[in-house]
Amino acid sequence: MHEQIWSYIDGLLPQKHAVVQINALYHMMRDYPRRGGKMLRGSLALLTAQAYGSTLDRALPLAAALELFQNWVLIHDDIADNSEERRGLPALHQLHGVPLALNAGDALHVYMWQAVFDCPVDVRAEFLHMIHRTAEGQHIDLSWVAEQTWDISVNRYLEMVQLKTAYYTIIGPLQMGMKTAGHQAHPLLTEAGLCLGSAFQIRDDVLNLTAEFDAYGKEIGGDLWEGKRTLITTDFLTQASDDQRAFFLKAMNRPRSDKRAEDMEILHTWLLESGSTHRAMEVAQTEAERGLACLSEVFADAPHRHPVERILSVVRNLVTRSF
Amino acid sequence: MHEQIWSYIDGLLPQKHAVVQINALYHMMRDYPRRGGKMLRGSLALLTAQAYGSTLDRALPLAAALELFQNWVLIHDDIADNSEERRGLPALHQLHGVPLALNAGDALHVYMWQAVFDCPVDVRAEFLHMIHRTAEGQHIDLSWVAEQTWDISVNRYLEMVQLKTAYYTIIGPLQMGMKTAGHQAHPLLTEAGLCLGSAFQIRDDVLNLTAEFDAYGKEIGGDLWEGKRTLITTDFLTQASDDQRAFFLKAMNRPRSDKRAEDMEILHTWLLESGSTHRAMEVAQTEAERGLACLSEVFADAPHRHPVERILSVVRNLVTRSF
Repeated sequence: MHEQIWSYIDGLLPQKHAVVQINALYHMMRDYPRRGGKMLRGSLALLTAQAYGSTLDRALPLAAALELFQNWVLIHDDIADNSEERRGLPALHQLHGVPLALNAGDALHVYMWQAVFDCPVDVRAEFLHMIHRTAEGQHIDLSWVAEQTWDISVNRYLEMVQLKTAYYTIIGPLQMGMKTAGHQAHPLLTEAGLCLGSAFQIRDDVLNLTAEFDAYGKEIGGDLWEGKRTLITTDFLTQASDDQRAFFLKAMNRPRSDKRAEDMEILHTWLLESGSTHRAMEVAQTEAERGLACLSEVFADAPHRHPVERILSVVRNLVTRSF
Repeated sequence: MHEQIWSYIDGLLPQKHAVVQINALYHMMRDYPRRGGKMLRGSLALLTAQAYGSTLDRALPLAAALELFQNWVLIHDDIADNSEERRGLPALHQLHGVPLALNAGDALHVYMWQAVFDCPVDVRAEFLHMIHRTAEGQHIDLSWVAEQTWDISVNRYLEMVQLKTAYYTIIGPLQMGMKTAGHQAHPLLTEAGLCLGSAFQIRDDVLNLTAEFDAYGKEIGGDLWEGKRTLITTDFLTQASDDQRAFFLKAMNRPRSDKRAEDMEILHTWLLESGSTHRAMEVAQTEAERGLACLSEVFADAPHRHPVERILSVVRNLVTRSF
């Protein structure tokens, strides 16, 4: 399935250009998609379409569009967060500088629309809605960093995560996968997606602090360096001592380049000892259970049970994985 | 005409949101469009549609889409060039930081597609083509900066400028304006647009060095600070002494923040004294004459002569203006 999505993307993106710099742009556009990754959104869309009787071919443009979305967003996110790495290699702007990476992200964004237009069913409105919500969530998250806001309630955090993650990870892929097969979206789909998106992101934030590097595949504690707001930092601050709080804010409000490894290690230890990761995991668990229950409902009438089983298994792994 | 384009854009963009940060994002998306500007591309599209019998209303979504394109590109360009100002006010990333401005540009990009979809005639393929070419031109231009390339032939420079400027300034607006009115593009349109786009950009580069601030409206010599490659710098280097060349490269290859005002003044004087601006203006003049001749041909069969006269007058001003 991964190979078919990649091959569709490979056929969609321009191959070669006689002007050497334009050729280099084409190469940059392929860089992130070519690095692999889970292709989670594309796979969920394909399986959903198949669950309602669509062929794989018919759903490929949608799956490719979702993966292209993920990839141009990652290029721009990596610039915004000044990330070092992506999928085990240097981030695109680390290789080529911010101006060229920014432009390559925009170019990839435009090719994403080509894939959307190639879908056999018109999903333009759903795609617009999905990206609007993602950009709104991204804005909230980045605003907290820009304004050095750390006092965030659980509800506010969930609102941000749902906008930023749930629409493009779960709701969009499933809804458009169904539409591709001529099936109307189930009323519980949004609820399922919001819960599962939250559970997925909270768990990812916990794993960023607790996982083994090899299994997780990203820098452990990297979120601390990037100054990410999570349910864990939010919870920690509500019960930290005044001294801990002052230390936390001072260390975390520095720009990444001025952050000190010893500070990050102390904070990492405090977060693990505070019980905050444990409490965040409980929230994730509640969201996951509610989301999985809704999801079973959503797919209850799907005639092809084999893809449904795979969807439920993929999503269950996603929201209960411990690596 | 300007007011109607703005009012369409204002109606298209989301107005208010209960979440304060999302409201701030909506505000950021409106910032550049609200600052005004010439609305050149939108106006050319409207007039072209009218020249072939379209109503203004019918062509408004296209005009709005072209202006939204210009605006999100400017937000991202200002980040890439680290520009200080835009339309007399601080650039968006100077006001809000790079991460939020980058995301607001992406959000505006998505709303641009909404305007494209609202066009009464399907212009998706033309829009894709236009943006692809613009991104390719932008990549070439940014590559020269990243690789500190200054030895650029006239043909290479024209190739870059045509991709970066001509497609979205002339070719796209006219071609899609015609399509909106049910008229097929004239075979000479591309040729006209490439010549006029080149003439426009070269003249803009000359004016950046020679204009009076009040009339030009941008920082005089700003291109030197931003390290822009132009036909003038290209011509200057072919005839500079070894000492001048060494001084030029050393001063210009510094990042903007390390550039020295006294160096920029010396270079500015050299460029003016070298005759390079004069020779660049001659190239612009040749391109302008050829382009205007083609343009008259292109519109020869347009039934509504009043809008045609306005188009020819707007374009003539654009490629012959001296302020």
